[in-house]
Amino acid sequence: MESLKVELYEEIKKYIFRYLDSEVEFILKVGNYILESGGKRLRPILVLAFAKALGKENTENLYPLAVALEYIHTASLLHDDVVDGADTRRGKASANRVFGNETVVLTGDYMYANALYLFSIYGDIDMIRNVSDTVKKMAEGQLLELKRIGDVDLSEEDYFKILMGKTAVLFGSCCYVGTAFATDKKSLRESAYNYGVKIGLAFQLIDDLLDYTADEKKLGKPTCNDLREGKITYPLLSIMNDLTNEEREFIKKVIRDLTPSKEDIEKVKLIVEEKRGTEKTLEKAKELVMEAIKELEKFPNNKYSKDLEKLAKYIVERDF
Amino acid sequence: MESLKVELYEEIKKYIFRYLDSEVEFILKVGNYILESGGKRLRPILVLAFAKALGKENTENLYPLAVALEYIHTASLLHDDVVDGADTRRGKASANRVFGNETVVLTGDYMYANALYLFSIYGDIDMIRNVSDTVKKMAEGQLLELKRIGDVDLSEEDYFKILMGKTAVLFGSCCYVGTAFATDKKSLRESAYNYGVKIGLAFQLIDDLLDYTADEKKLGKPTCNDLREGKITYPLLSIMNDLTNEEREFIKKVIRDLTPSKEDIEKVKLIVEEKRGTEKTLEKAKELVMEAIKELEKFPNNKYSKDLEKLAKYIVERDF
Repeated sequence: MESLKVELYEEIKKYIFRYLDSEVEFILKVGNYILESGGKRLRPILVLAFAKALGKENTENLYPLAVALEYIHTASLLHDDVVDGADTRRGKASANRVFGNETVVLTGDYMYANALYLFSIYGDIDMIRNVSDTVKKMAEGQLLELKRIGDVDLSEEDYFKILMGKTAVLFGSCCYVGTAFATDKKSLRESAYNYGVKIGLAFQLIDDLLDYTADEKKLGKPTCNDLREGKITYPLLSIMNDLTNEEREFIKKVIRDLTPSKEDIEKVKLIVEEKRGTEKTLEKAKELVMEAIKELEKFPNNKYSKDLEKLAKYIVERDF
Repeated sequence: MESLKVELYEEIKKYIFRYLDSEVEFILKVGNYILESGGKRLRPILVLAFAKALGKENTENLYPLAVALEYIHTASLLHDDVVDGADTRRGKASANRVFGNETVVLTGDYMYANALYLFSIYGDIDMIRNVSDTVKKMAEGQLLELKRIGDVDLSEEDYFKILMGKTAVLFGSCCYVGTAFATDKKSLRESAYNYGVKIGLAFQLIDDLLDYTADEKKLGKPTCNDLREGKITYPLLSIMNDLTNEEREFIKKVIRDLTPSKEDIEKVKLIVEEKRGTEKTLEKAKELVMEAIKELEKFPNNKYSKDLEKLAKYIVERDF
């Protein structure tokens, strides 16, 4: 995992700003602002890792595609900030606070379009089908999350659709594109996509778990943020059928409360722990990681495929 | 022109809602809301007209592409409403007022992505290159317009970049796609694109002219709206070099005034008329229409190409 991160991060770093070109200076300003705020560049790293796992060493024409997928991520962060009315992102003032909602919406549009444009130059139509489908699902997932706030009857199906849109489908597309760059084999492309989707879901499940269990100081924000915002996540969702009527009514009240008290939050946490919601979430994430690793069986056994296996395992071994 | 509108409008009507599919009901709601508010469907009509001008009668697979270009238009209207904070659109409450900014931003994202997805199914990579480049330029143009508000030093180059983004490049793509569906010939595709861009520019110039000259009652809104919003358009831009220092300073004051008085507005109107800003705008539009018609010379001489010629001429013969 570490070797993958260090080696490919350095490789991608040089290219990350290169394909963001516009004659309109504000687009460069906003684009650079959000790209400079960093992040782990996990998406382009996944793209490169899959191509290399399939023995593709000459990746000159893959960089713009890897970068394009980071631009899609960036565009979704920009629109997300507008949608959430966020004040900060990665410890900096959010782009919407610095540049205004209007500028941020339009720069996001530009970055989405630029990403697809890069695919039309360096990629192929099969990749574009996969990636544009992913952008559709990302918008659907975010919208669904927004609409389900305060909804205590959220179904498991809708919950997973939200996770798909938040992280999983874009991870899937990254793996798909890296593989499609290296091989025509449909089954390999699909396995790569499935690997990405599954680790994305596991990643998000652990994020949702950490929101319940993490050390507030380590997390850098109060726990149970989702709950405070009226969002039901897996730790709670997984025990909804095990609740007494009284517990269910209480949780309904907390979920709909715009400013729940510290005591109420602690009480929900306790219920989740007692009914094993946290264990269930970890089990589900582990299950997905095992499925993801199974998808790698079709790939050659080398340094990169091993690193991809480690990456999947690392997700459920994070500190929580 | 009329025959084109009636015949192809009827043809496209059946398909306009067909390719907007989502499992998320809110996307359908918002999408249908804005699609139902109508419009002339000029963009899909242009797509069909070019394919038919080239003798392509079986257009079953062209409908989803024609509709996709209307979706791109719709997505840009949705984001535009958020950017402008608009209250109404086509006489109905704007989507952002009915559904909220968040929902509208995400539905716009979905519609953009869905359009490119439709192109990946029914189109080809050359079309996608053209269309994604158009979406980039649309975002750039809108952003530029936003940033140039109150800027009395707006260059002609930036003004036309704004017009490109507002209308012209999408008109261009519509003509390009219809042609690309019918022929591989690059020169025809490019001529079609140029025709679309040029009539789009002329259309927008006349819009900007009408804002100065129209009968307020007929226009259904007060004239000189652009001026009131601090936007310099061609009638004024074309005479900026002919102004005395005093006139220039006065116009600067009005452009920067957030609530200019009726007297000041009338005075600017008078200057524009005296210096022939309105004639210059009409001349420029006519010039573009003549250039657009010239691009049609390479196309077969038939009912559809003749209708496209009439359509171009109609733009500068509108009632103003």
